[in-house]
Amino acid sequence: MSDLIQKFAEKLRAKRGENNISQDALSKLTDIDRSYIGRIDRGEVNISLDKLFKIAKALKCQPADLMPEIDLSND
Amino acid sequence: MSDLIQKFAEKLRAKRGENNISQDALSKLTDIDRSYIGRIDRGEVNISLDKLFKIAKALKCQPADLMPEIDLSND
Repeated sequence: MSDLIQKFAEKLRAKRGENNISQDALSKLTDIDRSYIGRIDRGEVNISLDKLFKIAKALKCQPADLMPEIDLSND
Repeated sequence: MSDLIQKFAEKLRAKRGENNISQDALSKLTDIDRSYIGRIDRGEVNISLDKLFKIAKALKCQPADLMPEIDLSND
C-alpha cells in the first residue's frame, strides 16, 4: 500500500492513542467491521472518504488532522 | 451523496479555480478518467484516499486543504 496510506494509518493510530480508543471501540463507534478496522489501522486498505469522515468523527478530530503531508517540492 | 462529500467537492472546485486547472487538465495530471473527474467534481462519488492524494498533488495542495470540517459539537 502507498507510503501516504501508511502515513495516514500512523496518524490514525496516534489519534486513537491520544483518545484512548481501542480498535474494538472504534469499530463500534463507526459501525465498521472490527477486522476491517484492524486493516485500516495497519495501513493495508485504501479507504473511501465517507469511512475517513466516520473515523474522524469517532476520534473527535477533523479529517484534515488524519491527512499525511505530500511533498510538493519536486513539481 | 453525503453532505461532507459535497463540501469536499466544493473545495476541489475552488482549488481548481485558484490554480486555473480544468477538469480535462486534472484528468491528464492524475491519469483519472475524464468523466470520473467530472463526477468527483460534482460530489457524485465517494473516492478513495489514493485518488484524493493524486488530486491534491495535481492541484499542488495538501490533502488536508481539500477536507471538509466536521461538526463535532453535538458529541
